[in-house]
Amino acid sequence: METKYSFELPMQVRDYEVDSQGIVNNAVYLHYLEHTRHEFCRAAGTSFRAMQEAGIDPVLRHVDIEYLHPLGLGEEMVSRLALRRSGARFVFVQDIFTVPDGKPVVRAKVTVVCLENGRISRGDVLAEAFKDYIEE
Amino acid sequence: METKYSFELPMQVRDYEVDSQGIVNNAVYLHYLEHTRHEFCRAAGTSFRAMQEAGIDPVLRHVDIEYLHPLGLGEEMVSRLALRRSGARFVFVQDIFTVPDGKPVVRAKVTVVCLENGRISRGDVLAEAFKDYIEE
Amino acid sequence: METKYSFELPMQVRDYEVDSQGIVNNAVYLHYLEHTRHEFCRAAGTSFRAMQEAGIDPVLRHVDIEYLHPLGLGEEMVSRLALRRSGARFVFVQDIFTVPDGKPVVRAKVTVVCLENGRISRGDVLAEAFKDYIEE
Amino acid sequence: METKYSFELPMQVRDYEVDSQGIVNNAVYLHYLEHTRHEFCRAAGTSFRAMQEAGIDPVLRHVDIEYLHPLGLGEEMVSRLALRRSGARFVFVQDIFTVPDGKPVVRAKVTVVCLENGRISRGDVLAEAFKDYIEE
Repeated sequence: METKYSFELPMQVRDYEVDSQGIVNNAVYLHYLEHTRHEFCRAAGTSFRAMQEAGIDPVLRHVDIEYLHPLGLGEEMVSRLALRRSGARFVFVQDIFTVPDGKPVVRAKVTVVCLENGRISRGDVLAEAFKDYIEE
Repeated sequence: METKYSFELPMQVRDYEVDSQGIVNNAVYLHYLEHTRHEFCRAAGTSFRAMQEAGIDPVLRHVDIEYLHPLGLGEEMVSRLALRRSGARFVFVQDIFTVPDGKPVVRAKVTVVCLENGRISRGDVLAEAFKDYIEE
Repeated sequence: METKYSFELPMQVRDYEVDSQGIVNNAVYLHYLEHTRHEFCRAAGTSFRAMQEAGIDPVLRHVDIEYLHPLGLGEEMVSRLALRRSGARFVFVQDIFTVPDGKPVVRAKVTVVCLENGRISRGDVLAEAFKDYIEE
Repeated sequence: METKYSFELPMQVRDYEVDSQGIVNNAVYLHYLEHTRHEFCRAAGTSFRAMQEAGIDPVLRHVDIEYLHPLGLGEEMVSRLALRRSGARFVFVQDIFTVPDGKPVVRAKVTVVCLENGRISRGDVLAEAFKDYIEE
C-alpha cells in the first residue's frame, strides 16, 4: 500500500550534522523527524505548546526507524509525513527521500499518545485538531 | 525471557541535553545508545575505526526504541547492552535504567550489518571479535 | 563604523535547539554561525572540502561572541557575514538579527587561519577565492 | 599570572561529538564548558535552577574562546574553572587540557550577569553562593 503523505518539508544537511564517517549521524534523523512534525503542526494551525496549554500533553512513546541510504555533506532531502490514528495512539509515518533522485533515506514510524492530567486520553482533542490530515 | 546484559555504562544527563519540555530530547537517547556501543567495543578490545581499517564497515540499519520514562536535569542512569547475532545481522539489545531506582527509561533494539567491500557480509570477523559477548 | 555584510542567510529556530530555559542553547549559535560560513563558501563557489583537497586546511582559532537577545521556539532570524583579512588571519564578522524586527541576537567575530602542509600560511589561496567578498 | 582553578571535571570525547574532519566540532566545546559550570554549581551546593526559583536569573552574556589543540575520537580531557567577579559581571575562566599530557585544548572566558525581576542586579546573591570559590 502506498503512503499518502499529507505534509512535506524540504531540508538540507548542515555540515555539523555529519559525523566522523562523513555521513549524517543516526540521531540527527530523529531531529529531522521531530522538526517535520512541529512544522506539520504549525501548518495544521496548532503547536505542541498550544496543546500543552490546553492541558493535553503529546508524549513520544515509540520510534521505529530504518536507515536505507546515508546522507552526506550539503545533500538535500524532502521529509514527508502521514498521520494515522490507532485507538489512543497517533502514528506518524515519516519518510525522508533524497532530492532530486527520490531515493529513500529513512523510513520511520513515530508513535505519540496524549496525556490529559497525567493519564493517557483517547486523544479526541488531537484528532479534532488534525482531522483534515488523518489518513483513514 | 530476561536479558543477560554483557556490558553496562553509568551515565548522567547533561543539562544541554534537556529540551524545552524539561526532559531529555528523544534524539539524545540515540547518542546515549551509540556512546554505549562504542564503549562496549573499546571494552571488547576493538573499535569501529579498527574494523573500518580492516575493511569491515559496520552499518546501522534499524533502531526500534520505546520511551518508557523521561529523564530530567542531572539524573543518573545506567545503560546496559546485550549482543545477539541473527544471520548476517547483529542486534544490540540496549536498555537504559534510572539510578538508583532501576526504573526502565528506554528499551531499544539496534541492528547493525557488516559491509565488506561495499557488500553485506556474513559478519564472521565481527562475530569473532565479539565472541565472548554474543548471547546464544 | 557600520559593517558592510557580503552574505546573509535566513534561518529559523528548530524546536530541539531550545533548552530547558525555553531559549536557544548558547552552543547552538556556533552551529548557526558555522552553517552560515559554509553556505557563504558555497555561494562564493568554493567549500571547506574543496580547500582541503587543494592542500589548504582552514582552521578555527578564535570565537568571540556576545549574546544580546535570546531566540525562542520557532523564531526567525537572518544571519549576516562580512569577511576581513588581517595578515594571515581571516576574520568573519557574523551577526544574527531577529526577523522581522531586526533586533540584534548575537554579535560574533570568528577567526580562521589556513594551514598548508601543517604550517600556518599567508592564506593567499583563500584570499584569492574570496577576493570579491573581503572587506578592505 | 597563573590561573588558580577552583574546580575541575574529567571528561571524555564521545564519538558523536566528532565531526567530518575527525575532530570535536567547535560548538561542542561550549557544551563542555556549560556542563562544567553546572557541575561546579552542584559542587558549590547550588544550581542554576535553584537560583531561578529564588528569582535570580543568571544570563550568559559573552564567550571568548581560543581553540588551541583539537580533540579527536575517544580522547580524555580535564575541564578546569576559576571564577572572578568584576562589578555586576561574573567571569568564568575555563580551560580544557588533554589527559594525560596537559596540552591546552581551549582557553575561554565566559561572562554571566544576574537578572533580578528582569533587570541586571549587582549579583550579591550569586556572590554569596560562590564566596568560597571567587578568586580575588
